[in-house]
Amino acid sequence: MSAADNFVMELQHPADVDVDCAAGRSERAKWLLNSPDPPPPLQELFTSIKDTVLPPPKSKKVLRPHNRCFFFLQGLFPILKWGRNYKATKFKNDFIAGLTLASLCIPQSIGYANLAKLDPQYGLYTSVVPPLIYALMGSSREIAIGPVAVISLLLSAMISKVIDPSIDPVNYTRFVFTVTFFTGTFQALFGFFRLGFLVDFLSHAAIVGFIGGAAIVIGLQQLKGLFGISHFTTKTDLVSVIGAVVKALHHHQWSPLNFVIGCSFLIFILITRFIGRRNKKLFWLPAIAPLTSVILSTTIVYLAKADKHGVKIVKHFKGGLNPISIHQLNFGSPYVGEAAKIGLICALIALTEAIAVGRSLASLKGYHLDGNKEMVAMGFMNVIGSFTSCYTATGSFSRSAVNFSAGCETVVSNIVMAITVLICLLLFTKLLYYTPLAILASIILSALPGLIDLNEAYNIWKVDKLDFIICIAAFFGVLFGSVEIGLLLAVFISFAKIILNSIKPSTEVLGRLPGTDIFCNMVQYPMASKISGILVVHINSGLLCFANANFIRERILNLVVDENGIEGGGLRVLVLDMTNVMNIDTSGIHAVEELQKKLISQGVELAVANPNWQVINKMKASKFIEKIGSGWIFQSVADAVNASVCLKMNVLNSC
Amino acid sequence: MSAADNFVMELQHPADVDVDCAAGRSERAKWLLNSPDPPPPLQELFTSIKDTVLPPPKSKKVLRPHNRCFFFLQGLFPILKWGRNYKATKFKNDFIAGLTLASLCIPQSIGYANLAKLDPQYGLYTSVVPPLIYALMGSSREIAIGPVAVISLLLSAMISKVIDPSIDPVNYTRFVFTVTFFTGTFQALFGFFRLGFLVDFLSHAAIVGFIGGAAIVIGLQQLKGLFGISHFTTKTDLVSVIGAVVKALHHHQWSPLNFVIGCSFLIFILITRFIGRRNKKLFWLPAIAPLTSVILSTTIVYLAKADKHGVKIVKHFKGGLNPISIHQLNFGSPYVGEAAKIGLICALIALTEAIAVGRSLASLKGYHLDGNKEMVAMGFMNVIGSFTSCYTATGSFSRSAVNFSAGCETVVSNIVMAITVLICLLLFTKLLYYTPLAILASIILSALPGLIDLNEAYNIWKVDKLDFIICIAAFFGVLFGSVEIGLLLAVFISFAKIILNSIKPSTEVLGRLPGTDIFCNMVQYPMASKISGILVVHINSGLLCFANANFIRERILNLVVDENGIEGGGLRVLVLDMTNVMNIDTSGIHAVEELQKKLISQGVELAVANPNWQVINKMKASKFIEKIGSGWIFQSVADAVNASVCLKMNVLNSC
Repeated sequence: MSAADNFVMELQHPADVDVDCAAGRSERAKWLLNSPDPPPPLQELFTSIKDTVLPPPKSKKVLRPHNRCFFFLQGLFPILKWGRNYKATKFKNDFIAGLTLASLCIPQSIGYANLAKLDPQYGLYTSVVPPLIYALMGSSREIAIGPVAVISLLLSAMISKVIDPSIDPVNYTRFVFTVTFFTGTFQALFGFFRLGFLVDFLSHAAIVGFIGGAAIVIGLQQLKGLFGISHFTTKTDLVSVIGAVVKALHHHQWSPLNFVIGCSFLIFILITRFIGRRNKKLFWLPAIAPLTSVILSTTIVYLAKADKHGVKIVKHFKGGLNPISIHQLNFGSPYVGEAAKIGLICALIALTEAIAVGRSLASLKGYHLDGNKEMVAMGFMNVIGSFTSCYTATGSFSRSAVNFSAGCETVVSNIVMAITVLICLLLFTKLLYYTPLAILASIILSALPGLIDLNEAYNIWKVDKLDFIICIAAFFGVLFGSVEIGLLLAVFISFAKIILNSIKPSTEVLGRLPGTDIFCNMVQYPMASKISGILVVHINSGLLCFANANFIRERILNLVVDENGIEGGGLRVLVLDMTNVMNIDTSGIHAVEELQKKLISQGVELAVANPNWQVINKMKASKFIEKIGSGWIFQSVADAVNASVCLKMNVLNSC
Repeated sequence: MSAADNFVMELQHPADVDVDCAAGRSERAKWLLNSPDPPPPLQELFTSIKDTVLPPPKSKKVLRPHNRCFFFLQGLFPILKWGRNYKATKFKNDFIAGLTLASLCIPQSIGYANLAKLDPQYGLYTSVVPPLIYALMGSSREIAIGPVAVISLLLSAMISKVIDPSIDPVNYTRFVFTVTFFTGTFQALFGFFRLGFLVDFLSHAAIVGFIGGAAIVIGLQQLKGLFGISHFTTKTDLVSVIGAVVKALHHHQWSPLNFVIGCSFLIFILITRFIGRRNKKLFWLPAIAPLTSVILSTTIVYLAKADKHGVKIVKHFKGGLNPISIHQLNFGSPYVGEAAKIGLICALIALTEAIAVGRSLASLKGYHLDGNKEMVAMGFMNVIGSFTSCYTATGSFSRSAVNFSAGCETVVSNIVMAITVLICLLLFTKLLYYTPLAILASIILSALPGLIDLNEAYNIWKVDKLDFIICIAAFFGVLFGSVEIGLLLAVFISFAKIILNSIKPSTEVLGRLPGTDIFCNMVQYPMASKISGILVVHINSGLLCFANANFIRERILNLVVDENGIEGGGLRVLVLDMTNVMNIDTSGIHAVEELQKKLISQGVELAVANPNWQVINKMKASKFIEKIGSGWIFQSVADAVNASVCLKMNVLNSC
């Protein structure tokens, strides 16, 4: 009679000492073995997709059609909801916040348009229509909509490769509108189909690294304006840009006057920011500093006729209302695929930035932001923007913070800002003819330090070294490669990390915690103790699959050899704790089968403890349970060890 | 005093009823919180690489240098070990097996050379040198070395894209040798650096699908020879090949005589195989049938001068010993990178096939095969093969099975086979001038059914539907795309499956199994029961990371809303069972932090049960433990639930 038979008999006719315990064990094992089939993976996938894509069932109240329609409209246009309770006191706060925002937004918009290699008026256009659309559809109260630095850089870096803006500015602008249209369409689709989780595919660490790298790249691009360099590189990486700057300085192709103007106003803006930080009541000082700088420097240049002495000025500046640009969208060109690709990337990055800033401000004020609704709002504002000469807009980090500090109450501050910018477009653009480019460079430069989050990078380093590698890879990828390389690297490493984590072939030897039935890693819990003759091995991997199954099998066999070597062949049962193995594939099942065969040939029995639902189901389907005998499957490690101890004692008794 | 403070006090000054139990709980929680730091991930990675790459420490006996050297040589050349005990009785068996093998090998080698678009003698060369080298270095006793169908197809399909063999056959042949050299080098390197696990990266399901697809593609290629078609497509996909055949048949560019000869001998071979299956003693009948067919058909064609009537014959056939080809290797060409790439793919596929067949036969005879040593042997045989006009050789499925049935004892049967092939090369090649190409096609066709494993595909379907999708993708990828597309698809889906499995955002509500402290999925175990006021949620994902953290947080919050909705706000504690979460990243920790904040705002406490070693470590590093209070971390779900019950009772008492 083999040891296994003995054991099965013992389970059926337990010795008097452990009647209750053995009966409980076998009943639990029966529960495990007879558990209903888990939902098949395809159905599970569909359910998961359905749960993801369909809105969660909200209140179970039955609504009349009329009400339902109204609720739907309210969902799409939140302004219908909060607009009814809007009061004059709120408007006062929003008005002040909106004016503060506009004074920061006008110079930044011109600068970002310059960064996106567009004429300056397009920056202002983008600060008019998208904020108005967002005010109707968005639900964040603090976010400030408009052009932002990272998206401007992304657009110019990626579109310049397709159409050179210095050669064909008209088609470049048309291409930018087409990309903006795709960006908006993708964003709206993501929202409609509730694909908000797509934004999560850029991990937190990757975003910190990417935005930090992008900030430095944007800063480097500003050296052109700051030094007044005429011939600059179209590449964005550190080496090319520094090379171009050194070359220009060496050949005296720059104008020191630009540098003096740019630097003095940069210092002015930084000092106001310092004062604003020290004294919270003076928050408006750093907010209006850029506009003040623009007005001052423009006046100085105009009066001194400095443009005749080498100071580069804006020059082209078309005023007036946003012109219609729907006829400029170009879907027939061979570039439409490229436009869709760039649109997709911009959509994801823009949403990431907007939702990050929106969520963090919403949680400060204690309300919840629905990511999917925000996406629909952002999508519509960009689609309509692309019809009205705007390029891609999103929520800006720096301006949203200013909006928040300025005490905005609702999204009305965005409306005030948009109207102010519109008035500026209608009346004052001629005055901006003499604005020096260096001042735009220094305004952009002054906004960058907020994008480089060293503190968060340090936190990431402390918590997760691999996450830090992702962060650093994104950072250096953007800095030394290009924007796309940085993004691709970050996404690639993020997913490689998931694969590495899931298949990392790792096993742990478990011991019993004193006074309990809990079995734990003996290295993590030094107080845990082994049971002689029984080796409990825990598979510390979420999957037992083709990529790690053979390795884990060999590792366990080596453990058995080590164990038998020390104790002189005393090992009788190997308990395989499968708690953490959430799924197994055919290679994994083959490996466990082979493991069992080899163990039997060495006189060791294999007991399987706590296989998961999917695992037990596949073991049944592959007849593995019949091969090892259902008596060797246990509901928990404790059950398996207790049964093995009984078995060992029985064998000893019979000896 | 908040509920949490109450609870912590309760832990420190437990009520009389649960003095022991509460003390045990808090001690276990302390063990968990004070567990030493896990090895840092980079060190863990290095240990894992070291364990992988370095050989496992064998016996601890101290060896004298002389013995050590001998053991090393024995390890490299196993023939030194078993050769000393080799006896004449064994040789008799090996001799018969070797002759049987040769009679099958000669026609197959010529056919496979034809498939690889090489002159027929190269197939025979490949059956001479590699088997001899393997006999010195390999440790499998049954494997039959030589050219195989899948590798021949791979070579011709991939190299034809670089150099067209019908235009430049000389450079094509040189390129094949260069690829073979790279294949051997990669194989030897994999073996030396113990990278055997690389072979595992093609999952079992992918291999079944890939080889099945490749078999059909090979069969389709044989239609050229079978119909005697002159102009054939160079593509390998089903659509192109069927198109070419239909076109040829339609335009009468084929010769029916070829078809008659090919089909009649194909039927002859299949009948002998059927007889061999029925009567195991006649195993030699199917083995010699191909050679018999070749001799018969060649004689018929020669006597009937059928080559004048449209029957295509071999013609070019250079006899003699393997010529040296080391000077033909071409590392200077622009194609060297391409050669290395194809070499790498061939190395992996060849090793997969050889190790699969070697291992399964070894386990039948009950000995263990060291994958890494086999790789070194295969590597050397291919490198030396590339110096002596051989193309890539590996272990053949069909011939190894014949070798096994013929009763081979050692690898000497390979030596006998090689010498027989060599004699044939020296003496009989002139006789093969008139061999019809159709006969080669029918020999290859007859070997294909063994490669299509419908039974295994059905098993995969039963056990794992997603694995079956991988299998089918590889199959159809090869069939309708190309060999590379099939392989890439299979590898891509395999890894996508790992990602999907690891990040699939899934949560389960747990209940207590009656009479135990075990908590289980309430859907899987219908007998499990809930504890009122406490919701136990299990995160059923190996990773809590950027890709699923937000989703899981929302899912849990929805569960809380559902629970509170039903019980009218009775929920007091949410126990988060993190048993299966093996790792967490910064996004995951943020998500748990946010979850806790939102729960607190709804009056629900968060208890974390059984965080893994890496998880508790990262929670410490990110100060999460300080935020939720160390009293809310438990070593097991049961501890967390029991503590929560105590807390609830305390609160009720104080009311």
